Amino acid sequence: MRNIRLDLCYEGTRYRGWQRLSGTDNTIQAKLEQTLSRILGEEIEVSASGRTDAGTHAKMQVVNFHCESEMPCEKILSELRRYLPEDIGIYSCRNVSPRFHARLNAKEKTYIYRIWNSDAPCVFERKFVLIDPRELDMDAMIKGAGYFLGEHDFAAFCAQSKTKKSTIRYIRRLEIQRIGNEIIFTVTGNGFLHHMVRIMVGTLLEVGRGERQPENILQLFAAKRADAGALVPACGLCLVEVEY
Amino acid sequence: MRNIRLDLCYEGTRYRGWQRLSGTDNTIQAKLEQTLSRILGEEIEVSASGRTDAGTHAKMQVVNFHCESEMPCEKILSELRRYLPEDIGIYSCRNVSPRFHARLNAKEKTYIYRIWNSDAPCVFERKFVLIDPRELDMDAMIKGAGYFLGEHDFAAFCAQSKTKKSTIRYIRRLEIQRIGNEIIFTVTGNGFLHHMVRIMVGTLLEVGRGERQPENILQLFAAKRADAGALVPACGLCLVEVEY
Repeated sequence: MRNIRLDLCYEGTRYRGWQRLSGTDNTIQAKLEQTLSRILGEEIEVSASGRTDAGTHAKMQVVNFHCESEMPCEKILSELRRYLPEDIGIYSCRNVSPRFHARLNAKEKTYIYRIWNSDAPCVFERKFVLIDPRELDMDAMIKGAGYFLGEHDFAAFCAQSKTKKSTIRYIRRLEIQRIGNEIIFTVTGNGFLHHMVRIMVGTLLEVGRGERQPENILQLFAAKRADAGALVPACGLCLVEVEY
Repeated sequence: MRNIRLDLCYEGTRYRGWQRLSGTDNTIQAKLEQTLSRILGEEIEVSASGRTDAGTHAKMQVVNFHCESEMPCEKILSELRRYLPEDIGIYSCRNVSPRFHARLNAKEKTYIYRIWNSDAPCVFERKFVLIDPRELDMDAMIKGAGYFLGEHDFAAFCAQSKTKKSTIRYIRRLEIQRIGNEIIFTVTGNGFLHHMVRIMVGTLLEVGRGERQPENILQLFAAKRADAGALVPACGLCLVEVEY
């Protein structure tokens, strides 16, 4: 069985997220699997480095899939580019070792979250940012961000889940920069729970608005979901890097 | 009568162009006039620095309008930002001299035209570029561009018109740069005929593909529309500056 890796990007605006869902084919995974199955003439299932939420974007997503077809990678690439919708783009297609698994082998992922922090118009990037002109204390947010670094129990920073899987994750980097009218959060970690980045950013925004002290974040590890901040909208979030 | 100047931007994708048309309110001028009329409680007509085509964008457009209302500019600005659709953005609103006219006083306008010249995916900027991966000879296009500089009769570079107005225009700058996978045309002139930038770019692309010699451009001044190149799509075009 061949194992093939695709590096891709997508604008998530009109999709119900990455993951295939019953009752709709309006997910990125479904579009990709349908297109690959048609091109290769066999049923294809893809594994991604991780799921992205409805409305969340990816500048870099990595998937792999197994197939019997002997179609050359260049041909698969050109066929995908021909048939996929214009909001899904394929950077590359290559044969990889049978052991490569896009999710299980991912060592680190990096997300950015963008906030348009101004009354000025944001017409051209509006689908890729959260528009919020309220004043934010950068120093307080940067101080708060520091408390996230390292290994912690992120149970309070994840959507309620029925499974009893570990909620411990390691955050290596959490940077907050102001560039013009934008505030950009960049977060790198070994894995992310459902909604984790969006709740971390929501909590830091509450710190930035003075509604929560930076030190309060220390008390949120192993706390309950209700203790942490609000979930910010999906449109500001973008997966930008996957490390293997 | 007050005279008010607005500086604004818009994404043209879903509009039938700048200019008010009978039978539809889906133009940028109509949206702006309707919104201003509702805010100010009187019928408002706006004049823009120039029209833009259906699908063409503006990072900077300037308009003026007269009104009786004494509503402060800050209030007009905040009301416009509240009620206009999210693809139209207002930078500023200010009182200007009664003699200021956005179109008649415009000394120079600058447009850019963007081409995504690669097979690589162009997902996030796809509504703002022409996607054309064919190879282009930059040197030939830059040489051709030089022939446009100065004052010429652009009759061949304009949509057929029934009026007998002058087709003489002055081009001060026409730069062509490659930045990564993009080729960007920047053109500054004292005025532009209907479709003029799009036909100039279409003609230069024919030069870039070797279908036309750079020197051929010299023979197109005062020639017929059919002699010049193809009209390129509106989506790659964006008005970026207006000088008074």
